[in-house]
Amino acid sequence: MSDITMIRAAAERLKGHARRTPLLSSPFLDDIAGRKVLVKPECLQHTGSFKYRGGRSALSALDEATRARGVIAFSSGNHAQGVALAAREFGVPAVIIMPADAPRMKIDNTRALGAEVVLYDRAGGESREAIGEKLTNERGLTLIKPYDEPQVIAGQGTCGLEIAEQARAQGVTRADVLTCCGGGGLTAGIALALEAEAPGLRVRPCEPEGFDDTARSLAEGRIVANTQPSGGICDAIVTPQPGQLTFPIMQRLCGPGLTVSEDEALRAMKLAFERLKVVAEPGGAVALAAALFRPDEIAGDAVICTISGGNVDAAMFRRALDISL
Amino acid sequence: MSDITMIRAAAERLKGHARRTPLLSSPFLDDIAGRKVLVKPECLQHTGSFKYRGGRSALSALDEATRARGVIAFSSGNHAQGVALAAREFGVPAVIIMPADAPRMKIDNTRALGAEVVLYDRAGGESREAIGEKLTNERGLTLIKPYDEPQVIAGQGTCGLEIAEQARAQGVTRADVLTCCGGGGLTAGIALALEAEAPGLRVRPCEPEGFDDTARSLAEGRIVANTQPSGGICDAIVTPQPGQLTFPIMQRLCGPGLTVSEDEALRAMKLAFERLKVVAEPGGAVALAAALFRPDEIAGDAVICTISGGNVDAAMFRRALDISL
Repeated sequence: MSDITMIRAAAERLKGHARRTPLLSSPFLDDIAGRKVLVKPECLQHTGSFKYRGGRSALSALDEATRARGVIAFSSGNHAQGVALAAREFGVPAVIIMPADAPRMKIDNTRALGAEVVLYDRAGGESREAIGEKLTNERGLTLIKPYDEPQVIAGQGTCGLEIAEQARAQGVTRADVLTCCGGGGLTAGIALALEAEAPGLRVRPCEPEGFDDTARSLAEGRIVANTQPSGGICDAIVTPQPGQLTFPIMQRLCGPGLTVSEDEALRAMKLAFERLKVVAEPGGAVALAAALFRPDEIAGDAVICTISGGNVDAAMFRRALDISL
Repeated sequence: MSDITMIRAAAERLKGHARRTPLLSSPFLDDIAGRKVLVKPECLQHTGSFKYRGGRSALSALDEATRARGVIAFSSGNHAQGVALAAREFGVPAVIIMPADAPRMKIDNTRALGAEVVLYDRAGGESREAIGEKLTNERGLTLIKPYDEPQVIAGQGTCGLEIAEQARAQGVTRADVLTCCGGGGLTAGIALALEAEAPGLRVRPCEPEGFDDTARSLAEGRIVANTQPSGGICDAIVTPQPGQLTFPIMQRLCGPGLTVSEDEALRAMKLAFERLKVVAEPGGAVALAAALFRPDEIAGDAVICTISGGNVDAAMFRRALDISL
């Protein structure tokens, strides 16, 4: 089970590898939100999302012989790239099982990072689990799950250690910390880090409307699933339901979830472009959108939010730029 | 005259105010350049460009009574915003004299940061110097020049202190450091900082074709001007000629200048979007363009470059996104 000791150990292993992203702000965003807005742009992390933290944490926690046989992951996007880069850095094989209809750019990027990409037909009869199990048994690969894996949660938690320190340096010790939430790895990791390092900071998961499984699960006190397992433009952070490991952590430590519309996520992307000069993907912008457009659901003089990733293609980014604010 | 002692003092004054921007990289950019590319994204600095460093340095170096009377600057863009924010932080008046045909967004932003914007007709008979002199005399304002001012150069030099430290942490001690160069404040400041802190790093100014006054001045050993005083899409870094204070520093410390086309600057903007997830303005992308597209004019296993600013409107950014790489 992940805890603060594991997060601190992960931070040690990530030193000199994961990037320490800055904590950004803009008086123009403060004006919109009606309070100070501090933004942790994990789009600036290696591979363009926080997922590298968890991938590197998990790989570096394996014993050398196990790691040398290689790793395997199921992912259509950011987790794939995080694991692929970490594996390349260790010089070990990575097999990534991706749906054949995943965005071309994400497949290409994962391959370019040295991973062996195995495509499966999402609509057809092929089970990715069956493909994965076969490869795992044949080659002795270790599965790196995207969020329900203690060392992955610990790796994402290193982002929380940085938030605690950087917020304190800016004089913010009491605030909501809004996270972009899919399976809950980042949210749970940050929540554990803040519990120990900045108990006045409370994590609240943010999701797109229609995929608010975490918000509803927290409200009901049990894991509930989305009616649709995937879809929408915020795909990078959409999962069927909160994880078995992440949910109890979120239930214990997080405040109520927040939801935003896809249009609000696009507007937040444009404001991140204009005011912070960073590139956010739609799913990566939901927490900023909540910080800006849900002022009445947030208390206090300051709010902190993550931008979880920036892996967006030019066509989608144009859609955001075309919005008039 | 600016020197390393002034830069170190400026760094002390900027502590807790200027942002320490990270040093970014991407294996995809390394592949294009054929060497390691380390990028210092000053677009992430307050107000979206390195200019805040110089503005804050200059204002913080004034004695309190002088500062309280207020400051004045001539600028159509980034320097205006840097000075305006610094003045607001000190709670003192700032008057910015801007051409009436400056981009609306830059005028609005400067006003929104609390400055009094005085517009003059660039094409007509009005001399901005006459307007400025009148205001200065009436109100006892202090002029903050954009680059030919020792405390401004010292402020920009703090970016060089960070580069020295961050490059060393990544194992890079011998490399060219490519700077986006207008009047030479950033270039000279970084060169002075590296002379003291990282003597194996050599600064080389980068400019857009047609506005290569610094490259030609360095080649001829004397200050020569551009044939046209302004124009093009890289306007943020176009000045008529190198400064009287900055040129001798650049002449003593810098290697040969590099020039790139506007099209190459736009391509670099798109690659910064795709691979670094940061927003660069055309002028802010010329050094990255040189790092990527002038491999034969650079030596060594690594190259460092600045992205000097990211204050670009959506229409221009769309132009960059539309380029096929």
